[in-house]
Amino acid sequence: MSILNKIDRPENLRQLSPADLPELCADIRRFMIENLSHNPGHFGSSMGAVEIIVALHYVLNTPRDRVVWDVGHQAYAHKILTGRRDLFPNQRTQGGISGFPFPAESEYDTFVCGHAGNSISAALGMAIADLNSPGEEDRKTVAVIGDASISNGLAFEGLNNASINPNNLLIILNDNDMSIDDPVGAMHRYLLELTTSPSYNKMRFKLYNLFKKMGLINDKRKGLLLRFSNSLKALIAAHQNIFEGLNIRYFGPFDGNDINKVVKVLNEIKDMKGPRILHLRTVKGKGYKVAEKNPQAWHAPGNFDPETGEKIKSVSGNPLWQEVFGDTLVDIASKDDRVVGITAAMLSGTSMSKMMDKFPKRTFDVGISEGHAVTFAGGLAAAGKKPFVAIYSSFLQRGFDNIIHDVAIQGLPVVFCIDRAGLVGEDGVTHHGLFDMVYLRMIPNIIVSSPMDIASLKALMRIADKESGPMAIRYPRGSAEGDPDSPVMELTVGKGRQIHQSSNARVAILTIGRVGNDALQAARELAAEGIDIDVFDMIWVKPLDVEILKKVAGKYDAVLTVEDGARNGGFGSAVTEALTELDYHKDIVRLGVPDEWIYHAKVGQLRAASEIDARGIKKNVVDLLKKIAE
Amino acid sequence: MSILNKIDRPENLRQLSPADLPELCADIRRFMIENLSHNPGHFGSSMGAVEIIVALHYVLNTPRDRVVWDVGHQAYAHKILTGRRDLFPNQRTQGGISGFPFPAESEYDTFVCGHAGNSISAALGMAIADLNSPGEEDRKTVAVIGDASISNGLAFEGLNNASINPNNLLIILNDNDMSIDDPVGAMHRYLLELTTSPSYNKMRFKLYNLFKKMGLINDKRKGLLLRFSNSLKALIAAHQNIFEGLNIRYFGPFDGNDINKVVKVLNEIKDMKGPRILHLRTVKGKGYKVAEKNPQAWHAPGNFDPETGEKIKSVSGNPLWQEVFGDTLVDIASKDDRVVGITAAMLSGTSMSKMMDKFPKRTFDVGISEGHAVTFAGGLAAAGKKPFVAIYSSFLQRGFDNIIHDVAIQGLPVVFCIDRAGLVGEDGVTHHGLFDMVYLRMIPNIIVSSPMDIASLKALMRIADKESGPMAIRYPRGSAEGDPDSPVMELTVGKGRQIHQSSNARVAILTIGRVGNDALQAARELAAEGIDIDVFDMIWVKPLDVEILKKVAGKYDAVLTVEDGARNGGFGSAVTEALTELDYHKDIVRLGVPDEWIYHAKVGQLRAASEIDARGIKKNVVDLLKKIAE
Repeated sequence: MSILNKIDRPENLRQLSPADLPELCADIRRFMIENLSHNPGHFGSSMGAVEIIVALHYVLNTPRDRVVWDVGHQAYAHKILTGRRDLFPNQRTQGGISGFPFPAESEYDTFVCGHAGNSISAALGMAIADLNSPGEEDRKTVAVIGDASISNGLAFEGLNNASINPNNLLIILNDNDMSIDDPVGAMHRYLLELTTSPSYNKMRFKLYNLFKKMGLINDKRKGLLLRFSNSLKALIAAHQNIFEGLNIRYFGPFDGNDINKVVKVLNEIKDMKGPRILHLRTVKGKGYKVAEKNPQAWHAPGNFDPETGEKIKSVSGNPLWQEVFGDTLVDIASKDDRVVGITAAMLSGTSMSKMMDKFPKRTFDVGISEGHAVTFAGGLAAAGKKPFVAIYSSFLQRGFDNIIHDVAIQGLPVVFCIDRAGLVGEDGVTHHGLFDMVYLRMIPNIIVSSPMDIASLKALMRIADKESGPMAIRYPRGSAEGDPDSPVMELTVGKGRQIHQSSNARVAILTIGRVGNDALQAARELAAEGIDIDVFDMIWVKPLDVEILKKVAGKYDAVLTVEDGARNGGFGSAVTEALTELDYHKDIVRLGVPDEWIYHAKVGQLRAASEIDARGIKKNVVDLLKKIAE
Repeated sequence: MSILNKIDRPENLRQLSPADLPELCADIRRFMIENLSHNPGHFGSSMGAVEIIVALHYVLNTPRDRVVWDVGHQAYAHKILTGRRDLFPNQRTQGGISGFPFPAESEYDTFVCGHAGNSISAALGMAIADLNSPGEEDRKTVAVIGDASISNGLAFEGLNNASINPNNLLIILNDNDMSIDDPVGAMHRYLLELTTSPSYNKMRFKLYNLFKKMGLINDKRKGLLLRFSNSLKALIAAHQNIFEGLNIRYFGPFDGNDINKVVKVLNEIKDMKGPRILHLRTVKGKGYKVAEKNPQAWHAPGNFDPETGEKIKSVSGNPLWQEVFGDTLVDIASKDDRVVGITAAMLSGTSMSKMMDKFPKRTFDVGISEGHAVTFAGGLAAAGKKPFVAIYSSFLQRGFDNIIHDVAIQGLPVVFCIDRAGLVGEDGVTHHGLFDMVYLRMIPNIIVSSPMDIASLKALMRIADKESGPMAIRYPRGSAEGDPDSPVMELTVGKGRQIHQSSNARVAILTIGRVGNDALQAARELAAEGIDIDVFDMIWVKPLDVEILKKVAGKYDAVLTVEDGARNGGFGSAVTEALTELDYHKDIVRLGVPDEWIYHAKVGQLRAASEIDARGIKKNVVDLLKKIAE
């Protein structure tokens, strides 16, 4: 690490001679392998992007010049080079640095980048702002976007708008997936390289003026192309590379793991005017043989032996929630041939892969297109299919209007299996799934549910298969509670259940989903201390179980609600609304994730901080009992 | 109307000879002109789409074959031809048919189409479902999408997915906007027409097999292109028409107002396999001279004289809410050069046009790209600008995740001016803006406000200009209440105000936004009847005015909340949460739009049905007083 150790900031990097850069890249890779082997993170894409990152900080004047990352887990080398090398070993831990670039963390981090596809739109905003700010016109803005992210609708909208207003945005397409051969070989490469030379661009400008004089193009016509209410039409007229069709100059493809090449190209194009795209091909896991060979498995590999590449498996206990989902879906699909499965680039993460393995023709991975996933499901449902859509809670936010407009208004029988609901831990602020109960329960005629254990998840999915309208089932990350081999359980829409009963309870705890287990534990511990409370697993956020609520209203002196989700507007709020309507005029305390941004830490630490774990619930019960005793 | 009068259903239409079709189209246009002149609606696009609609029902076997409309206001002729001619005069009125195709209304209406860009995704779902349903494989599905809608990110995601799984989807691009000359003239036209002939397509298939034999293409390589995790890359490789690059066969452009031409082309391509796009050029307002000349003004012209085309102006009273917004924005922008304006194809609708007129370089209309509009604003704000984003409430749902991820997590000072908030009337179920208070108030660190009159809107916008974080201001459609010339008013974040005070009030009404005027009227009418109530205009959904709430909790025997928004989860729910936390153990009644889908009618009718007008508020006060007297 002889070179890396001297680089605390990009200023140091810019002192290096170009000849030193390959060694620096190697140092960064060694540093990442060592650290990520025991503090796991996103390995493959960060290994592939090392040269792009080194070149950007070498050529540009960061942080004045801005680099906007798209899905930040490609950007570890960026963190390492921008004053956070010593903090890197603690990334993604409580109090440590984030796994993603984050503006509040560093002046080198320009924008939040947890959800894919936003970089072009955000960078375009910055580029246009600078051009319109006296003294800032020469600042450069670069968006770095992966080949999966650029297929997202938001990225397309950004591209589509990139040539409407004057700007000097540079988009780097970090393409680490597709391996189509070069289209034409040497001559093609020559032409491609030519396009980055200043002389070519002078020629381009001269040609433009010549054509204009000859009347082949005119300002009116150019304006029509530039205005671009519709990029596709312009393309039809242009008959050329899509980016050029979008009036975005295109350079590439080049080898994005050749540091000298990338530096050279960046130097050549960095001062050009107008929007440009630079297409760089990189290798996922570059520099670590086993990862290069099996990039998918090394996307986020967990702990591994840095010498051998052998993965260190964690001790396995109960199946994961997503595994229960995947197995149950296959089971349901084998009995009901209307069932189809849909996900949006979360095939293995959601275990939709199980359905894909068994019923490949009935399973659809639509890529990073959450909105399309939902509307597509609506279309399938309108034509008689029974779609189960599995998407992480925080990403489903992108399908919000689609849920309302393309599913719920029509009452289509789409099942939303909302994975990673609640606090997710290390991935932090952009990935917690805290809002789904709020934004779903306001939608008319949708059913919203959450299981507290394996048996209820299975039962809810079976109910969903039979429902004639939309239904959501939310469940968290991690190991599922309950007996994997428990017998089939019967549930009814809108009917919760009492899971802890005692003789002299003055307080009822109403829970939704996994936190029911914590409430149960709290109740048992309190019982051991001689304190009686009752616990109800409500199962349904919507429709709420009014019978239970009436019983609760008539019997208890106080109610405590618990949810692994936003405290305001969600389950507890729904219970409060309903109890108020039942003229319940006593104490209602809502436990949930408070109304503030929650950052990264272990899930357990975050649950403790929100007091939605057994200990927090106990504490709140005791406080509440004290209060009502006064 | 000699022909149209005989057409009750597409079956009748299909009995006609091709020679009769031009006269039928003329009949339909006369019928639309007559009706829309006194029952206003979307005129221009529906006039332009007549031939496409007639041809589709003539050539296809609807309703078994499915037509999916994208933004349904092009589809009046579809309604007229599918059993709703006699109902057409009452469209968009209470109890009448909807202004958009709507599945619950007719078996010919296949999918909801109020928000642009969803047709390809939905139709793709249907097309794939049919191919996988025994006996349904021969059903045809056609998506009809306009040139503005196809630039939406969702439409792109749909296109991007249209060639992943086998399907026979036909996409018709109804292009009524761009007027670029034909690229090459006669030869070009010949080639274009050739592409639709069966012989060409046989040739295409033979060539494919030939190339395969010669080893120029192979299945592996084809698979790479087809898989399409990234359409843009494939395009780079393909160097051709974008649709062909997306592996979607492309036909066109053809004159979409030439009925015989459209019928011929449809007949030629309807039985082809695989996804196809047919590009038809149409003229907005076709067949009505004044509308053809000025298509923008005739998009939705209101009442007009069918003979002369003269528009019949409604009597003007107070300025519209949007006009107050537009004028105030210009005023603020003239004093603060950080201010920029952004909208998403709602330039005149939101009056962002006023800003565009005055500060064209500081105003951005990004087209139908609500998500991009929000993220772009985030980028502008990150670079020091002060963006005011004006979008209709129901369309802003598409920027939901962008508000959270690209603005609020970073605390960026973007101002959301949420237009058409609350019940909107005739546009109906897809256009009501009922959810914004629910989905915004759950987001940490955002300010959410709503003015009840002109003076408060102005004051809120001035506060927003000075705020350092995100802030939303919601206001409805229609004429603004209050004195247009009222002096500048000072407001403070989180501070509401009492607007009606009486001596013996036992009930407090807490309102948000425009409904404050109704509450005030109710209070005055009740006062005249000797009933005392107090009214508070809360102004802020978030942060709530805790001082007022404490006062209310200490003083009144019951609280009534009123909002023009979803009753569950919104303002009333926030007040209920807060009063519960203040140990207020008395009655709280929430008035708002109930938890069901609300269809089209006059705004006044809908407000009355939700009891959020003066009469409804009075009734609920009286009921509440009776209850607490018991």
